[in-house]
Parts: sequence; structure tokens; C-alpha cells
Amino acid sequence: MPVGTKATVKGLHPDRLRAAGASVVLANTYHLFFKPGADTIEALGGLHRFMGWDGPILTDSGGFQVFSLRHTITQADAEGVTFRSVYDGDLARFTPELVADVQRRLGSDIAMCLDVVPPPGVPRAELELSVARTSDWARRQLAAPRAEGQLLFGISQGGVDPELRRRSLDEISELDFDGNALGGLSVGESREAMLETVDWAAPALPPGRPRYFMGVGDPEGILDVIERGVDLFDCVLPTRLGRTGTALTREGRLNLKNARFARDPKPLDEECACGACSRFSRAYLRHLVGQHELLGLILLSEHNVRFLLDLTAGARTAIERHEFGRYKADVVERLGSATAGQEVPS
Amino acid sequence: MPVGTKATVKGLHPDRLRAAGASVVLANTYHLFFKPGADTIEALGGLHRFMGWDGPILTDSGGFQVFSLRHTITQADAEGVTFRSVYDGDLARFTPELVADVQRRLGSDIAMCLDVVPPPGVPRAELELSVARTSDWARRQLAAPRAEGQLLFGISQGGVDPELRRRSLDEISELDFDGNALGGLSVGESREAMLETVDWAAPALPPGRPRYFMGVGDPEGILDVIERGVDLFDCVLPTRLGRTGTALTREGRLNLKNARFARDPKPLDEECACGACSRFSRAYLRHLVGQHELLGLILLSEHNVRFLLDLTAGARTAIERHEFGRYKADVVERLGSATAGQEVPS
Repeated sequence: MPVGTKATVKGLHPDRLRAAGASVVLANTYHLFFKPGADTIEALGGLHRFMGWDGPILTDSGGFQVFSLRHTITQADAEGVTFRSVYDGDLARFTPELVADVQRRLGSDIAMCLDVVPPPGVPRAELELSVARTSDWARRQLAAPRAEGQLLFGISQGGVDPELRRRSLDEISELDFDGNALGGLSVGESREAMLETVDWAAPALPPGRPRYFMGVGDPEGILDVIERGVDLFDCVLPTRLGRTGTALTREGRLNLKNARFARDPKPLDEECACGACSRFSRAYLRHLVGQHELLGLILLSEHNVRFLLDLTAGARTAIERHEFGRYKADVVERLGSATAGQEVPS
Repeated sequence: MPVGTKATVKGLHPDRLRAAGASVVLANTYHLFFKPGADTIEALGGLHRFMGWDGPILTDSGGFQVFSLRHTITQADAEGVTFRSVYDGDLARFTPELVADVQRRLGSDIAMCLDVVPPPGVPRAELELSVARTSDWARRQLAAPRAEGQLLFGISQGGVDPELRRRSLDEISELDFDGNALGGLSVGESREAMLETVDWAAPALPPGRPRYFMGVGDPEGILDVIERGVDLFDCVLPTRLGRTGTALTREGRLNLKNARFARDPKPLDEECACGACSRFSRAYLRHLVGQHELLGLILLSEHNVRFLLDLTAGARTAIERHEFGRYKADVVERLGSATAGQEVPS
């Protein structure tokens, strides 16, 4: 899912997003709650019409943003969490009922539960409390009104603590959600510890419902969690890298600021059919990036989104053909070889 | 002609530029000479392939940039002009032969002569010298090699001094150019003084050749010079306004930062069919602009380019129907009434 934080996938017109192969787009409840406000979006016909995207939209609950911005929290209790907005410092309070109502008014296709996301390495007692509150809030949000046809996904917490993660999984899984997510991972723990948890936690999610891993977006990481049974992910990586002049390619990352591209007539990625690769050279993109031209950001963002969508489409096909292991090994080998190649001075 | 200063019309993918109705695009020899360099663009197959634009391209000579950046000039003599680059401060020297060669290597469809552009209000002797050198340089550039099929336009100087403007017109008009331009206007003199000169100077240009007025881009100004017989103009106004959150509309300019648009479901301009107006509300565009989202700049830039191209297409049709006077009066009246409306606090 490409990320449209503030009701736009940065740099991509919805038509280009569609052309890149996007299906579900993610938008952030935290940001839209403040700017422009759920009431405004509702008055304008809902989020789909507002942002000109007629495909599915998943809205997160805002929990991740609030708990990541720990210094803005003034009170976290059993009922909800009070914090100062990053926009104007005004106090706001999120509860399961509030975020349900905001997402109802946004009219997203998939709403997410408000969860308590502790930082990595917290004392076990705090982690245990976050699991208990996340379960309690999940039950409350399940009982709250939703938009017509809106799905609701539950989120388990528990960090990389096997007992607490298992407890959270069990408590969330027994509730009647339309899909399930693993939250509170990729928040600072090692990649190994994260994957060790996903190893057993993803297969333990309720069968027959989509499984969403919150917080991985690099090509290898995506394949790592797909391998463990995950269906959905989101990440700002492709557009963020695009805005810093970096392209994701089958041969590894290209930093377009590198002088070796100054007269390179090749596309970013010879196997890509995106709007950048089908028409423009690395030399032109390097020129645009070097001159801080908007079109450079636009083209690189579209390319990177397309690259990750192609990667996951390839993974889906490989799974259907029972060839995922080979697909992943091939992709990772090419990514790795090229990263090494990039370190050779040119 | 939308302006693609550095081989890109800021914020517009070539496909969107085409969709907006663009035909000729202008690119700047000064900037491309330094970044990425004419040799690089030539090595990559020329400017059309480099920037992905298969329509006509007009390249200016760089004269306007050099003489506008007066403080960078270290020597101006009969042979050429030496100056320090705005990119790295290195010395560079433009002569008619050099800019002919640069434009030959860029491979533009229309090349422009290197002219001497004096600032407004210079002593008459300096203006007279600029006229003489511009004519001499025009003859030299006419003799220089060009790209195959490349057209060359001459430029007259003389400011708003009737005698010197007439002398320059006569000297340039007798040379075998493919088109003619009025240069050295809109450089600080009053709009009245400028139009007074265009009044007699545009009709005095050689018949049967395109007439290009360098340096007007606001809707009224464009109609003012069309009325006096001008065929071509260029201006950065539409994309520059777009990047500052301002939309050109048939009802005047809209500053999208204005709170009155917060819930406005209307398109920027109800009569516009651009990629912004066909899908997005003023409220969404205001949100994007307020949040510094790239898509806001992209959509406003496309809209503004389309608006000016529609304006000139309308003028062409009106001329063919012998209704230009009424067309202009109607357009100007609507623009004016709305500007007044905008000043009412809301």
C-alpha cells in the first residue's frame, strides 16, 4: 500500500498512482484529523472524492503517530490518550470511539483499531499494560459505529516478547475483525528479532483473513514478511527515497546525485515500464535532481512506487506457481550484487 | 509558450504539458549551457529526447539572462560579453557564434539571436550602442551554422525610444530571419510606454513571419499584445504562480491559502477541463497547498498553463471570426470584476 499520509501519495497524481499498479492506498487519521479535519472531508463527500482516488483506502488509527511522538503525550490512561498536536500544540484526545468516528466520517474502506504502541525495550510491566489496553480498546472500537461496508482490522501488540505477543494475538484473534495486523514491530528492535517474532506470529493469525504487517517497506524486508505469510504492508520509503534523489532498482539503489550518471542514457531500471523508465534517461533524472526540479521528485517517486508494486506482484505470481523461494533468492541476489557494485568508485 | 527553463516546465510531466494544449516549449540556453551543458545534451540525442518533449522547442540565446544579471558581467565589448556564471562563479563568454553553436547542439526547432539588452532608463548613447551591437551580432549569428531545419529569429532592441526602436527594427527586418522578436521591453518601463511602442512596432515587423514579444505573460498583457499583432509570447508566470499557491481563473486570481476555500467543493475554474479542475475541489487544493504537498504545486502549475493556453486558443478563434475586440473586452471584464471581489474580506 503506497502511503498517502495527508490524502496524497507525495508527488503522485492519482492517475499516475493507478498507472503504477496501486490498489489500496493508506491515509493517516492522525494528520487528516487535524488538517483539514474529518468534518471538512466528510462535508466534501468523503476521503475518496476529496483525494480523487476511487480505489480502496485503508486509514490507520493514529495510534502509531501518537505513541511515536511520545513527548507530545500529556496523559495516557485506560480510556484513551491525550496529547498535543504537532500542528499547533493544542490538546487533543484519542479514544477508540473517537478514532472509529473519525474513520467513519473519512469513509475509508478499511479502518484500523487504536492500539497502544510502546517503544522498544520498555519494562515488561509497561509492555503488558499496552497489550491489555490494546485488547480492551479493540473490543470498544469493534462496538462503535462504522461507515457502511467499512472493514475493521485488529492489531496485536506485545513487541518481541513471546508470551505477551502470544497473549495479544489470542485476545485480538478471538474478536470478529475483518483482518489482522501485527503492530509494534520494526520500532527499533533488530531485524532478526522482528523476523523471529513474525516467524510464528504471522501463521498464528486467524486463517482466511488478510494479514497486515505494519512497518516494513524495503524490498528485502517485504519479501521476508511475505515469506512468513503476510499479505499487506505499507511504507513511505518509495516516495521518501524519491524525494531525496534515490531510485529503487532491480540492481539495487541508485543515488542520482552520483556523477557517474551524468551521461548515462539508460533508464533507471531496464525492466521497468513506469512513466520515468519508459521515456527518460538517468542523465536527465540526474539533471533534474541536481537542479531541484519538481519533475525529478515526481518521476522518482512514481518509479519507486511502481518498483515495489512490481516486486509484490511478482511475489504473488511466484506464490501461485509455488516458486516463491526461488523468486526471493533471485531478487535478493541481484539487489545485493548491485549494492556491492555501487561502492566501486566510478 | 510555456517556459521550460532547465529543460522542464516546472512541475509538469511532458504528457501533462501536451494534455494542457502546449505546442511550442521554450528552454533557456543560459541555464542549459551550464547545467548539464550542451555537450551532454548533444551526446544524449539532443534536447527533445533529453527532456522527453517531441513538440517544437524554442531556445532563447541567453542574452536576456546575461544582461539581466548585470552585476555578473566583467566585460561587454563589440565581440561578445564575458560574465561569471550564477552556478559556480566561473568566467564564461557568450558571442553570437557561441550561442549559435550551443543552440545547434541542443537541436531546438527555433533558435534566437544573441542581443544586447540594456536596462530601462539608460543614457541614449548606451541604448544606441546596444542597437548597433544587436544588429551586428544578428548578422554574425545569421552566418553561423545551425542544426538541420533549425529556424532563427532576429530580435530588435531600442527600448521605448521611437527613433532607436525604428532603426533596430529596420536593420533586423532587412535580414533573412524566419521570425522576428521585440526584445528589451517589459524590463521596467511602464505598461503604457511598452504598449505605445508595440502599437507601431509590431505591425512594422516583416509580414508573413511570426512575431514574438519577449516578456509578457499575464492574461491582460497577452491580449494587449495579441491585439497589436503579436503571435508568440513566453512567460514563467503560470508555473511560478502555481508554486506559490495561486490559480489563474476566468474570474481572476485565486490565492488558495485563503480560508474561504476551506470547504469549497467547486473546481478552480468551472469552465476549465484541466487535470486539476476535472477532478479536484478548491478545498482539496487548499489543503495540499497549506500542507506543502507536491501534488498542490503540480496541479496548480498544470491548471495555470492550461488556463493561458486556453486563453490564447480562444483569442485565435476570435481573430478568425473577426470577434477579437469583443473577446478581449469580455475576458478583461470578467477578470477585473473578480479581482475586485477578492478584495472583500471573507
